[in-house]
Amino acid sequence: MVTKKKKRVVLASGTFDLLHLGHVRFLEEAKKAGGKDAELVVIVARDSTVKARKGKKPVMPEDQRRALVESLKVVDEAILGLDDFSIRKVIERIKPDIIAVGHDQDGIEKEVLKAIEKEKLAVEVVKIGRFGKRELDSSSKIVRKIIESFNK
Amino acid sequence: MVTKKKKRVVLASGTFDLLHLGHVRFLEEAKKAGGKDAELVVIVARDSTVKARKGKKPVMPEDQRRALVESLKVVDEAILGLDDFSIRKVIERIKPDIIAVGHDQDGIEKEVLKAIEKEKLAVEVVKIGRFGKRELDSSSKIVRKIIESFNK
Repeated sequence: MVTKKKKRVVLASGTFDLLHLGHVRFLEEAKKAGGKDAELVVIVARDSTVKARKGKKPVMPEDQRRALVESLKVVDEAILGLDDFSIRKVIERIKPDIIAVGHDQDGIEKEVLKAIEKEKLAVEVVKIGRFGKRELDSSSKIVRKIIESFNK
Repeated sequence: MVTKKKKRVVLASGTFDLLHLGHVRFLEEAKKAGGKDAELVVIVARDSTVKARKGKKPVMPEDQRRALVESLKVVDEAILGLDDFSIRKVIERIKPDIIAVGHDQDGIEKEVLKAIEKEKLAVEVVKIGRFGKRELDSSSKIVRKIIESFNK
């Protein structure tokens, strides 16, 4: 009997405000971690979650951030985060084989590892490295450049 | 004899600085104008061209703008514009069936129509409408919002 190997589901998350190439490279590496034919599901943080965590809402509203992320080739599905953000609930709903975390997502990585240990979940956590030192690889650098250019 | 219908090539162009949903919707409509199985080629304006036309370079460098546009599902190929921008040369190289122009691309539309008439080219020009009145449907609105938020 031939058993068909199940597609591996990779879960990544982020705010994805002011979409840039660093975001795309992160998502590409995340999907690669799931091997050939992996499915990439991306959770896009809600405005309220970002506001609660960083004290400020993103520039782009959540529905536009979600739609833009889903319009990327590498993304199979992009969904908005839960209102009451909970790693455990997210894992229950998406059932990922792998959770990918970015180089700047130490907080999320910690929460994920804690939830996995507590609930004895069969989820692998993969840390995605940073991509070279590009000039514009973060939303805050983009904002800085815009403000500098405006004040000239 | 069955003749296989050739894929229609749609050409669109733009700066695509600070990529937003309005860009994606424009490209989706442009591709639709070519019917089923159309191929969408996008010309991304060089930094030098933008500087010459608008007096200011884009926030994101040209190679990153190009790569980001090509990472969109709707885009088959994204290429940087020619150094000496010429509609005629672009048409010769890409051989599009359709050229799509955006609601804010009157200058480009004029140049395209002039070149088509002068050279008697078999190219259709399709004007793409604006998509609702979204809050953040233009790069300049995004810049304005960032600066307002910074000055608070």
